[in-house]
Amino acid sequence: MKKRRIGFQGDLGAFSQEAVRQIFADTVDVAPFQRFEEVFQALDKAAIDAAVLPIENTLAGSVHENYDHLLHFKVRIVAETSVRIIHNLIAPQGVSFRQVKRVFSHPVALNQCLSFFKTNPQVEKVPFYDTAGSVKMVIEEGLKDAAGIAASVAASIYGGKILRRSIEDDRQNFTRFFLLNAKKPVLPPPRDVKVWKTSLVFTTRNTPGALFRSLSVFALRDLNIVKIESRPLRGKPWEYLFYLDFEGREQDPHVQKALGHLAELADFIRVLGTYPRGH
Amino acid sequence: MKKRRIGFQGDLGAFSQEAVRQIFADTVDVAPFQRFEEVFQALDKAAIDAAVLPIENTLAGSVHENYDHLLHFKVRIVAETSVRIIHNLIAPQGVSFRQVKRVFSHPVALNQCLSFFKTNPQVEKVPFYDTAGSVKMVIEEGLKDAAGIAASVAASIYGGKILRRSIEDDRQNFTRFFLLNAKKPVLPPPRDVKVWKTSLVFTTRNTPGALFRSLSVFALRDLNIVKIESRPLRGKPWEYLFYLDFEGREQDPHVQKALGHLAELADFIRVLGTYPRGH
Repeated sequence: MKKRRIGFQGDLGAFSQEAVRQIFADTVDVAPFQRFEEVFQALDKAAIDAAVLPIENTLAGSVHENYDHLLHFKVRIVAETSVRIIHNLIAPQGVSFRQVKRVFSHPVALNQCLSFFKTNPQVEKVPFYDTAGSVKMVIEEGLKDAAGIAASVAASIYGGKILRRSIEDDRQNFTRFFLLNAKKPVLPPPRDVKVWKTSLVFTTRNTPGALFRSLSVFALRDLNIVKIESRPLRGKPWEYLFYLDFEGREQDPHVQKALGHLAELADFIRVLGTYPRGH
Repeated sequence: MKKRRIGFQGDLGAFSQEAVRQIFADTVDVAPFQRFEEVFQALDKAAIDAAVLPIENTLAGSVHENYDHLLHFKVRIVAETSVRIIHNLIAPQGVSFRQVKRVFSHPVALNQCLSFFKTNPQVEKVPFYDTAGSVKMVIEEGLKDAAGIAASVAASIYGGKILRRSIEDDRQNFTRFFLLNAKKPVLPPPRDVKVWKTSLVFTTRNTPGALFRSLSVFALRDLNIVKIESRPLRGKPWEYLFYLDFEGREQDPHVQKALGHLAELADFIRVLGTYPRGH
C-alpha cells in the first residue's frame, strides 16, 4: 500500500516533523514546504494527503498566520498533538564545542536559549530562516567554527553531532500542532478517547455585550472553553473574528444545541473541526 | 520651556511619528529607537518623557510583543490614537518611475501593496527592516533604480520624491497607538471627552467557565468590552493572560465595582490605564 504524504513547514528534521511522527509513528511519508501558506495550498490541490501545522507555542503564543489560513482554506482539524521543544546545539562531525564561534538558528529558537549564550559569551548568535535548516547548512557548508540549534532528529538526518543537549531556557516550552484534512480523510490510528475538543471561528454582531452572550451558549451548557483567540476582521476596522476551542464533540446533542444557539447570536460561524484532546 | 521628548520605534518619518504628531501636534521632540523593547527601557529609565507605541493594525492584527512589554514594564496608558496607513512609493530626486526596478520596505508594507506589484511586474520587492528607513537608505545610497515604500512624511524628511501616492491595497488600514507614561505625567492637550476606555490585564483561575464569569462583571454593569486579546502565561502551559479594553473610566463608581468584582474572580489583575477614546 502506498504511504500517505503529510505536508509540514520547515526543513526535514523540523519540530513539525516530530509532530507528524507523534501522530503517525513511521507509517507515513513527509513533504517539507518553505512557507505555511504553501502547505495549505498543497492540501487544497490534494498534492499532499494531510498537513501538520503549528497553532500555538507556550512561550511565543499563537501562530496567527495559521489562524488566518484556517479561515481562508477549506480544511478540517482532525487531530492535535503537543511537542516538547528541546533545543540542541548541533555541529558538523569533527567540530568540538571549543571551536564553535557562531551559532545559527531561527530567531525564536535563539531567543529561547539566552542563558546558554550568556554563559558562553565567546559564541555569536546568527539568525537563520529555520532550526533544522541551520544544521543542514553548517554541515553542507562544512563550517569549522559554527553550529546550529535544532531538534535532535536534525542531527541524525544531516549526520551532525550533538555538542550540548537541551539548552533551552524554559522546560515549559511546548508547541501544539493540528492535523488538517481537506479532500480526503487521513486520520491518526484509532485510540480510546476520553475528552473531545471542538474548534470554531465566529464573528459577533457589533453590539455591546455580544462576546459575553456568545460565550454564554457554552457556559450555560457546562462546555469548558479552553482557548480564545481574536483576529482582525478585514474591511471592518476594530471588529474581530474569534477562534474558540472548547471541550465537547461536535456530534454530541448538547454541543449541537450550543452551536445552534451561537448561530442565532453570531453573524458568521464555522466549525473548524472536532478531535480527541491531545497529549 | 524645554520640549518634552517622546520615544517611538522606527526611523524618523515612521508611522509612529505621525501618531506622535496626531497627539501633540508640533509641541514635542521625538526620539527614534530601533526596537520596541528599547523604547520601553528608555521610558523606564526616564531617558524619554513618554512613548508612543503601536498596539494593533486593522489588517495585521495585534502587536503581541508590545502586549507582553505592557505587562513587564511599569507603564500607564494615558491616550490612544489611530493612524490611517497610506503607503507611498518614494524615490531619490531625479529617479523616474520608469527607472525603478527594486522597491525596498518593511515586509508588512510590501505585503499590503500586492496589487501595485501585480500591475508592475518589472519591479522587484526587497524586504527591509523599516518603512521610513527604506526611503532613507535609497536616498543616502543614491540608488538610481530603487525606491522605498513609506508614509509621505518620509519624503519630506529625507528629501525624496513621491512617485506614486496611496498604493496600499486596502483603504481600511489603520494602526492604533498608545501614549505611555512611566515616571511623570505627559498628557495630550485637554479636550472634551465623550467616551473613556480602560485597559487591563488579568488571569483567571484555571476552572471551567472562568473566562465567562470574568466577562460577566462587565456585562452585568453594561460596560462594553471592545477588545480582548490572549497571550500565553509563562510557566503554565495552555493557560493565558487576557488583555481587555472596555468603555468606562477607571474612576467611575460602577467601573470601580466591576474591577473589584473581577479581583474576586481573577488570580491576578492590573489596570494598564484609562484614557479618552481616540479618533
